[in-house]
Amino acid sequence: MTIQEIRDYLGRFFDAVELVGNDNASITGPAKIETAEKGEVSFISNEKYIRFLPQTRASLVIVNQSLPVEEFAGNTSFLKVRDPYTAFVFLLQKFAGSRTVAKRGIAATAVIGEGVSIGEGVCIGDHVVIGDRCRIGSDVVIGPNAVLFHDVSIGDGSVLFPGVVCYDGTTIGKRAVLHSGCVLGSDGFGFAPQADGSYVKIPQMGIVEIGDDVEIGANTTVDRATMGSTVIGNGVKIDNLVQVAHNCRIGENTVIAAQAGISGSVTVGSRCMIGGQAGFAGHLEIADGIQVAAKAGISKSFNDSGVVLRGVPAQPIREQLKHEAWVRNIGSMKEKIEQLEAELAVLKNHH
Amino acid sequence: MTIQEIRDYLGRFFDAVELVGNDNASITGPAKIETAEKGEVSFISNEKYIRFLPQTRASLVIVNQSLPVEEFAGNTSFLKVRDPYTAFVFLLQKFAGSRTVAKRGIAATAVIGEGVSIGEGVCIGDHVVIGDRCRIGSDVVIGPNAVLFHDVSIGDGSVLFPGVVCYDGTTIGKRAVLHSGCVLGSDGFGFAPQADGSYVKIPQMGIVEIGDDVEIGANTTVDRATMGSTVIGNGVKIDNLVQVAHNCRIGENTVIAAQAGISGSVTVGSRCMIGGQAGFAGHLEIADGIQVAAKAGISKSFNDSGVVLRGVPAQPIREQLKHEAWVRNIGSMKEKIEQLEAELAVLKNHH
Amino acid sequence: MTIQEIRDYLGRFFDAVELVGNDNASITGPAKIETAEKGEVSFISNEKYIRFLPQTRASLVIVNQSLPVEEFAGNTSFLKVRDPYTAFVFLLQKFAGSRTVAKRGIAATAVIGEGVSIGEGVCIGDHVVIGDRCRIGSDVVIGPNAVLFHDVSIGDGSVLFPGVVCYDGTTIGKRAVLHSGCVLGSDGFGFAPQADGSYVKIPQMGIVEIGDDVEIGANTTVDRATMGSTVIGNGVKIDNLVQVAHNCRIGENTVIAAQAGISGSVTVGSRCMIGGQAGFAGHLEIADGIQVAAKAGISKSFNDSGVVLRGVPAQPIREQLKHEAWVRNIGSMKEKIEQLEAELAVLKNHH
Repeated sequence: MTIQEIRDYLGRFFDAVELVGNDNASITGPAKIETAEKGEVSFISNEKYIRFLPQTRASLVIVNQSLPVEEFAGNTSFLKVRDPYTAFVFLLQKFAGSRTVAKRGIAATAVIGEGVSIGEGVCIGDHVVIGDRCRIGSDVVIGPNAVLFHDVSIGDGSVLFPGVVCYDGTTIGKRAVLHSGCVLGSDGFGFAPQADGSYVKIPQMGIVEIGDDVEIGANTTVDRATMGSTVIGNGVKIDNLVQVAHNCRIGENTVIAAQAGISGSVTVGSRCMIGGQAGFAGHLEIADGIQVAAKAGISKSFNDSGVVLRGVPAQPIREQLKHEAWVRNIGSMKEKIEQLEAELAVLKNHH
Repeated sequence: MTIQEIRDYLGRFFDAVELVGNDNASITGPAKIETAEKGEVSFISNEKYIRFLPQTRASLVIVNQSLPVEEFAGNTSFLKVRDPYTAFVFLLQKFAGSRTVAKRGIAATAVIGEGVSIGEGVCIGDHVVIGDRCRIGSDVVIGPNAVLFHDVSIGDGSVLFPGVVCYDGTTIGKRAVLHSGCVLGSDGFGFAPQADGSYVKIPQMGIVEIGDDVEIGANTTVDRATMGSTVIGNGVKIDNLVQVAHNCRIGENTVIAAQAGISGSVTVGSRCMIGGQAGFAGHLEIADGIQVAAKAGISKSFNDSGVVLRGVPAQPIREQLKHEAWVRNIGSMKEKIEQLEAELAVLKNHH
Repeated sequence: MTIQEIRDYLGRFFDAVELVGNDNASITGPAKIETAEKGEVSFISNEKYIRFLPQTRASLVIVNQSLPVEEFAGNTSFLKVRDPYTAFVFLLQKFAGSRTVAKRGIAATAVIGEGVSIGEGVCIGDHVVIGDRCRIGSDVVIGPNAVLFHDVSIGDGSVLFPGVVCYDGTTIGKRAVLHSGCVLGSDGFGFAPQADGSYVKIPQMGIVEIGDDVEIGANTTVDRATMGSTVIGNGVKIDNLVQVAHNCRIGENTVIAAQAGISGSVTVGSRCMIGGQAGFAGHLEIADGIQVAAKAGISKSFNDSGVVLRGVPAQPIREQLKHEAWVRNIGSMKEKIEQLEAELAVLKNHH
């Protein structure tokens, strides 16, 4: 790809893409500014990295439109845009191309059930098992050894990496990405205690519904609802090893980091950000835009949109940080009490 | 199913099932009281839901035998029992029927080792691999792409969902349910440190023994013992993404919520309840009936049957809640100390 | 194996292996000292277990060279070495032999891509899928239903248990052990926030590099780098259900216990020990030999080699334990304040 072609490509996303330097060098791939070599493209978004400009060997660097780079032009050319970080992400997508998870067509070793509909342009890998009455959209990719029970629906352009398992009735939207080992629709954890100490299983008769543009990480689990649906909204991004229990509803564009756990019947709003290893008690409601710090334990509902929560049990970060500072200084409180005791003893002796 | 058929079915479990209303309406499925439609059956167990009675469109509602519902009978009929929640669970089981995880028989693509015994009525899915000398009981269901190493034993009526892996020698009781991606019998985490900083692997020569009526969640891991067995007792229920390390013993009917982690050689008693993301240090003994709150960190043995533990490190909940209240009020302690200092300064000035 | 053969075998690892008793008994396997039967070999490393010596039925016990055992010799023989624990570990390895994960050769149902090179003596199980241009070393074992994307490299003598998934470009060293369900090279969790609240995926174009003699537990996930490599150093041991995010570097011989989570771009030194359920914020540097207690939350870099960290947020254990002791005694602080208030009130009244 030439610099001119990159400029044209970025022009699709940005009104202005200004070139400093020459436009005909050939660019072979992306790299970090500090390690880039001739023929590579990099970017500077954070001021901290400007110090690498004088020595960079990159042939092209994407920078902010306000950054004066003219003095560095020479072996390095520059493209100036409003948001160099996002521009570089789009460029990465261009270089990434499409990964070969499974080859075009349906592998001979895949087993397809009865009454399955399959769209055009699919790639269905070896040893995939697709149950009866599944609906597979166009351009869907299903990696080797993935299993869909019966009545699963996969929207156009979605990618299931090898070994994904979707239980019966799971519905997945368009352009979803499900990483290896994630399990969607396993039974919710529900058992009715009996007088003799044993448990009777509560059948989990609902399903899992995954929206459009969702990404779910490796070995993450999303349980089916007892009745109705566990819902993952459009644009939600879930990291690895996350647990989403039965009957949860996760709002649009919410982001959940690795190893977080969300108990049953929790409703999380849209555009929330949930830190790693955070945990939620059951049956809570979390408003839109709430941020939850890593390792926090959410023990009650929070209706205040946009609040940042931290601690176990979690509370708004301002109170929590004040509280943590007090606790951290407990040693000095102890000293003050001892000093008060000493002074009071002196005073009492004087009486 | 007609209401009369439901009444007869519940009569198998309850001495008295009293009908209020007519018994010939046809019931097509279960639903929550607040969303149920004509033809659906629901239940009321918790008083909070009685408020939905006047407007419900359900054709049948299971209620407590003491609840006066006569005024609401009309389009809705009622069945009165001693325990409407458990009655509804049994009814769910009736409606759930049996899920098709794999079709009856042994799939043509399954690979069966030498000396394997297989009972009647099994369903063994596509691409299942069963190692030499395995023993598969009657009515066992093994979902597609599951793998049993050699010498694995599966009791009658157990269900392994797709992608389950049982390492060599694992024994599983009757009517167990193993969800997708769970791994039973992987090597315990044992390494002998060497003088040069490296480690020598301690061979894990034991096995995993799973009792009857156990349910294990998706992507949960249970490690084999170093010598002897890691034991999951009868009736134990384990949620998703739980870690049970080598040489643990989990007592009968104990329940373990998602993402809890139990270190090596821990013995947990019977009828314990362990919250999500809780963690146990190694080599502990936990008495029968102990409850562990979510996110708790158990750092020592607790022999006091039935105690509730909370906190990191965990202690009995009464002390822990008192302690947490004090810590929460640390700000007022700080204020009191400052006030004492001021008052003392005044007193000293007066001298 | 006779006692004499065991003595010869241990002589390969230890300068001196002294026999007390006779050397011709036949030893069939290992056992714990308290449960060993005739024909079995056990060991005593910890003084606590010496009390089992008088009653043991073991035919052979490995003990420390300084332990006087002559009076117990009779049905039981003894081998005295400098380090009986490590000697027993080597003996376990001898008895363990090699586990049959897959049979010698390439299973007929395995699917091998184009341009794949495969070494001698491999065992490649049923339904394994190996992508184009993979390089499989000699004596590699790949369990059934494992999947390698294209361009994966596996070093000599490595073992992949059933269901392991390696994304494209993953490189694995020699003698590595990857347990079932672990996923190497799935996409790092990177998304660029957009003005409308949605996210654009940041392509994850790097790879995962696993060193020699690494062991990775069941259902653990290691994400590929955004650019460059996520690196797991030689000799690293990782337990089950651990998350290692994109661009991390884990130093040689570091040990990570179950359910720990390491955020993106963290560098962990060599010979570190990381406890279960510990968590690391992103972009940190952790010096060599640092130990992290279970459940700790590491929120900043620590450069002090060999320090032990504990707490959330974590600090060196000495300060943390002092701090925890103060917090635990907060009740007595409260009492002292109340007493001070009472005494001060008396003093004020006297004025």
